[in-house]
Amino acid sequence: MKTYVRHLGDYKWEGIPLLAYKEDGGTHFKSITRQVLSECSENFPTELRYFEVAPGGHSTLEKHQHVHMVLIGRGSGHCLVRDEVHELKFMDAVMIPPMTWHQFRATGTEPLGFLCMVKCERDRPQRPTEDDLKMLRSNPTAANFIRV
Amino acid sequence: MKTYVRHLGDYKWEGIPLLAYKEDGGTHFKSITRQVLSECSENFPTELRYFEVAPGGHSTLEKHQHVHMVLIGRGSGHCLVRDEVHELKFMDAVMIPPMTWHQFRATGTEPLGFLCMVKCERDRPQRPTEDDLKMLRSNPTAANFIRV
Repeated sequence: MKTYVRHLGDYKWEGIPLLAYKEDGGTHFKSITRQVLSECSENFPTELRYFEVAPGGHSTLEKHQHVHMVLIGRGSGHCLVRDEVHELKFMDAVMIPPMTWHQFRATGTEPLGFLCMVKCERDRPQRPTEDDLKMLRSNPTAANFIRV
Repeated sequence: MKTYVRHLGDYKWEGIPLLAYKEDGGTHFKSITRQVLSECSENFPTELRYFEVAPGGHSTLEKHQHVHMVLIGRGSGHCLVRDEVHELKFMDAVMIPPMTWHQFRATGTEPLGFLCMVKCERDRPQRPTEDDLKMLRSNPTAANFIRV
């Protein structure tokens, strides 16, 4: 285990690779990168990731059983949690409850960077079916917000 | 579960109480506060805390089986991990391996604030015995650093 990882500035860390947001690719997200800062073990069953969404980009609209704990690191943007949209700025905290639709978007002119904690053993995210989208779009707030 | 917690500025959060560092008191730490940002559950077995050490203050010198994952939020300071001392600044990451002596100190004129993640079900920290202190003090770096 590496005990010390230097922040190089600008939310890059020494020896931490800049990864694709999701390994499987797809068109259900846009302009987003991932860095993994932690190491899963029995003594630390948590993954700490730093995501950064470029202006105009967004994470996947999804839900899952595991909880997300998010802390905003830099920039600004908005997120949808169930049917509420929150404005996001430095150190705001967002908790995504189980099986709750959510999406993060960099809605301004600056990137949206955030820390996201999840448990290491977790279920796969589910993307919305056509019926789910119909339901989501019945709410004007969500209808205006979501990108799929 | 509260889904959104606003950062009020200065590393204070809406509705999050400012707590004592440890419930049991003691003289083995100095000038340090705690805020708990997360909620433990089967779907999120992790506690996210924000600690802030006032200038001249320090956390307890201790070790335990569970791992600490630390990210520096504000200010500056130093930490001891086993027998190494690291200088700390914004967004540096520190991982404390199992059963490894560690201590955080706000060595400068500003507070040292850091996020610290641990698993919810964890063992109690152990403080050094006289023999442990003898061993620790045989290393000049540790000897100069530790506060007990």
